[in-house]
Amino acid sequence: MSDIVKGMPSGHGDSYQLNTTSLIRHAARTYPEQEIVFRNRDGSWGRYTYADCYTRVQRGANLLRSLGVEAGDVVGILDWNSRRHFESYWSIPGIGAVMLQMNLRLAQEDLSYVTDHSGASVVLVDETLLPVAEALATQSSSVREWVVMTDKPLTEIKTSLPRVRHFEDLLARAEPVYDWPVIDETSTYSACYTTGTTGNPKGVYYSHRGIYLHTMAQAANLRMCGDDAAMIVTPMFHAQAWGLPQSAVYSATKIVLPGQYRAEDTSTLVDAMITEDVTVVNGAPVIFQPMLDYIKSLDSRPDFGRARLLSGSTEPALSLMRDFFELTGADIIHAYGATETGPTAAVNIGLKRSLQRKLTPGEKWDMKRSQGLPLNGIDVRIVDAEGRDLPHDGVAQGEILLRGPWIAESYRDLDDDTERFLDGYWRSGDVGTISPDGYIKLTDRLKDVIKSGGEWISSIDMENAIVGHPAVVEAAVIGVPHPKWQERPVALVVTADRSSLPIKEVHGLLADRFAKWQLPETVLYVDALPRTSVGKIDKKALRATYSEFRE
Amino acid sequence: MSDIVKGMPSGHGDSYQLNTTSLIRHAARTYPEQEIVFRNRDGSWGRYTYADCYTRVQRGANLLRSLGVEAGDVVGILDWNSRRHFESYWSIPGIGAVMLQMNLRLAQEDLSYVTDHSGASVVLVDETLLPVAEALATQSSSVREWVVMTDKPLTEIKTSLPRVRHFEDLLARAEPVYDWPVIDETSTYSACYTTGTTGNPKGVYYSHRGIYLHTMAQAANLRMCGDDAAMIVTPMFHAQAWGLPQSAVYSATKIVLPGQYRAEDTSTLVDAMITEDVTVVNGAPVIFQPMLDYIKSLDSRPDFGRARLLSGSTEPALSLMRDFFELTGADIIHAYGATETGPTAAVNIGLKRSLQRKLTPGEKWDMKRSQGLPLNGIDVRIVDAEGRDLPHDGVAQGEILLRGPWIAESYRDLDDDTERFLDGYWRSGDVGTISPDGYIKLTDRLKDVIKSGGEWISSIDMENAIVGHPAVVEAAVIGVPHPKWQERPVALVVTADRSSLPIKEVHGLLADRFAKWQLPETVLYVDALPRTSVGKIDKKALRATYSEFRE
Repeated sequence: MSDIVKGMPSGHGDSYQLNTTSLIRHAARTYPEQEIVFRNRDGSWGRYTYADCYTRVQRGANLLRSLGVEAGDVVGILDWNSRRHFESYWSIPGIGAVMLQMNLRLAQEDLSYVTDHSGASVVLVDETLLPVAEALATQSSSVREWVVMTDKPLTEIKTSLPRVRHFEDLLARAEPVYDWPVIDETSTYSACYTTGTTGNPKGVYYSHRGIYLHTMAQAANLRMCGDDAAMIVTPMFHAQAWGLPQSAVYSATKIVLPGQYRAEDTSTLVDAMITEDVTVVNGAPVIFQPMLDYIKSLDSRPDFGRARLLSGSTEPALSLMRDFFELTGADIIHAYGATETGPTAAVNIGLKRSLQRKLTPGEKWDMKRSQGLPLNGIDVRIVDAEGRDLPHDGVAQGEILLRGPWIAESYRDLDDDTERFLDGYWRSGDVGTISPDGYIKLTDRLKDVIKSGGEWISSIDMENAIVGHPAVVEAAVIGVPHPKWQERPVALVVTADRSSLPIKEVHGLLADRFAKWQLPETVLYVDALPRTSVGKIDKKALRATYSEFRE
Repeated sequence: MSDIVKGMPSGHGDSYQLNTTSLIRHAARTYPEQEIVFRNRDGSWGRYTYADCYTRVQRGANLLRSLGVEAGDVVGILDWNSRRHFESYWSIPGIGAVMLQMNLRLAQEDLSYVTDHSGASVVLVDETLLPVAEALATQSSSVREWVVMTDKPLTEIKTSLPRVRHFEDLLARAEPVYDWPVIDETSTYSACYTTGTTGNPKGVYYSHRGIYLHTMAQAANLRMCGDDAAMIVTPMFHAQAWGLPQSAVYSATKIVLPGQYRAEDTSTLVDAMITEDVTVVNGAPVIFQPMLDYIKSLDSRPDFGRARLLSGSTEPALSLMRDFFELTGADIIHAYGATETGPTAAVNIGLKRSLQRKLTPGEKWDMKRSQGLPLNGIDVRIVDAEGRDLPHDGVAQGEILLRGPWIAESYRDLDDDTERFLDGYWRSGDVGTISPDGYIKLTDRLKDVIKSGGEWISSIDMENAIVGHPAVVEAAVIGVPHPKWQERPVALVVTADRSSLPIKEVHGLLADRFAKWQLPETVLYVDALPRTSVGKIDKKALRATYSEFRE
């Protein structure tokens, strides 16, 4: 990092701390009547207002204090996208405590590790997730209080937990007013653990300041206002559901909380969009594709002309984006980020005027697959294997580095995280290009990219080109060690009839996009490709298998 | 202020300093092709891009360094809304120096006071304002370098200044790249002096952090994006033209800089709106009314359906807002603030849905005259004369207090500014109400409000009601001392035929809006009301004249 230069001191409001509490307080004061709609456990919907919500948030703060929670303590929450989860976003950090986002899909030992590593002393748990909590209680040593969130009386709750408190009973007894402290803005707001393919989950601890700035940037970027209605589909235990709960409150939009999302709930999401006039949704292709399929089955097409569907995770397919738009008017907006980036780092919203004029319709759709422009406040670099900056010419591929007020600068209590940071930038592990006008386009993961002769070859681009052949079912391209070139690409291909293709035919598929030296000399035909537990092609296994391979 | 509670330290990007430089750098990287359009001195228009502008900003930074300007130094600028002024918004603070906003309309002794008080050592001056600089040079002792901004060669510039440097010559010789320092975010970005009716101008010193946060909030609030075009009409020496230059850059909008604005330039503004497809304008009723009059004279009505006209200063007349909307589709948006508030504190944009359903068309228009909702981040209170909080019921009138990350916490080097601050809030001197759903409505200035029997009577409301009488030309209501009630209202009225009205008729005008005890017992008929130098009714003079008045 550069040295920090001090100019003349100012008399501006710099002692004012950016506290997330002020976001919900402001919303409750200026939009007390705005609605929050939530799906109950039994599938029915309820609704209340920002004013009601804020009262429950204040009661929740008093509840936590009554359990002995102090500033700096960690309170975990195990819940779906419920109103209680939403309230906890404000009550827990509001008293200066840390909200631990407990990913209920983690393997039991990982969740146990996360809980103990964070030192969570209190956990709020939805009744449907009691089995997760019960398993956790046998392994985790830090939790001293379990609080069950349910609409039933405590007597109807069966659990093996040693002692359970009843959230709603405590809440009803708590005072409805809380005198919020002013919290140092660099204090932790929440903690979210990221899981890699190796090692323990790594803790990303978000500050009030970082969350506040991310919230403002997202609200500005999505152009949200009180006339919007935001539906939170992304799990709220994933990096604050990408910050949408907070930016919705900042903008005083209506909020729709669909509870637990399962594949069979697709119709519920679409119906809620129609009923509640939803205009902002977060999700991913794996959620939007079934929604689109359901919409196609409807007798009449809904009008989602105001809707912005924020799509994280993998790039949305062109057909998904186009069909959704043509059927409903909704705009699927690809966004880029990670737990470490707050999480929104870039958003592909609203193609620039200059490009609108210049591009063909096909090129415009293609542009929508890029990861978009970094949010104002985020600095982006691409660097080669030696950490040297590469040009932003839309061609040079490098690892994407990110820096900004809501980008992680460290992992919690990790002995050696230096390899994940460079000059104050977080190393994303993503490989991509940056165009002269700032668009980020991911091309690969750093660990999958093939490093050959000092240049990088995108395994993903090559795979996409090869599967374009009608006979190919799937393909993986990996780098194998090479004495002269460091690595050379090897393609592993599964064909429908298990036959091989002439090498010229494979090279023909790649000719448009790759230089001659980049073409694989070797194409191996296999019966199947290994998969990871989440269904991705396991390139790590492939690299291990073929590490001794020589052409 | 409350004590600041420290929670758990975070690993978030909190060492990242909010520097305004990153706003323009980001815009130049992500929207290099976006246009900035500017009016030249000869009335012609020029245009360049964000990329070009950013290069000139970097040259400007090198230029300043070559003049010996260091972090913490003050550089004044005397200019209209030009591109050079715009560039200075980034180059001066970018090197850690302070941009002194020199109000060219100030009385000469005030401008001299401001210059010396700030300690400005370098002044950039537009050639048309050399006479102002020349007068200043005879009085001010702090300035050591004068730099003239002109398109002419230096040899054509006639001036009595002892030595003048030529901005464009220096700029052409300066390097086009500047390695920006990271500036402590609490360092001063700019200084703007506010002039009251008494005493010397008071210095408000804005921090990088405050400006950055104001910028984000305004961009979010005005829902600006790269498809917008912002025309900066408010003078750029007035509290950063209300922050629009920065929020436009944040949103990467096209920017239109109309240069010097004179009454005869009204057609230029309207024509520029049409030609450049302008969607955001800042101004005031005194600017928008002539624009409307000019539009009425046009053969065809322009379509300003996307336009938001941000109107500060006095409340826009209903007829102005309605006619502008009905003729062009443009939305006049009243905003509230002051030099001390960054300056935007509240904006009346986009009537809430709940009110859209509830109000009649007439009531909706009336709502648009309120000062709107505070920006998220701004805390508002209303207090009585003893500083006690009053209810937000839309009825109780109190002085408006403001606090937030871009609200002044002090004046520069003012021995005793305690009476202008209360519990960390800035005292606005404005009297108003706050509705249960957060709308601010100004009713008076604190110094003009009539304090009677422990309650406040709005002089403005009473004046507005009285001038509603067809025979009344103008009216002023002042408080005169009263032994029992502290003050009682006295109305001073000018009628067209110099006749008097029966007191019952006056009370009849007031009956709807005022309680019986609030009605003035005394109405005095006068030939004329005294005026201040800027044309406002001089209530201070009236109060002095009638201070001995007894009913």
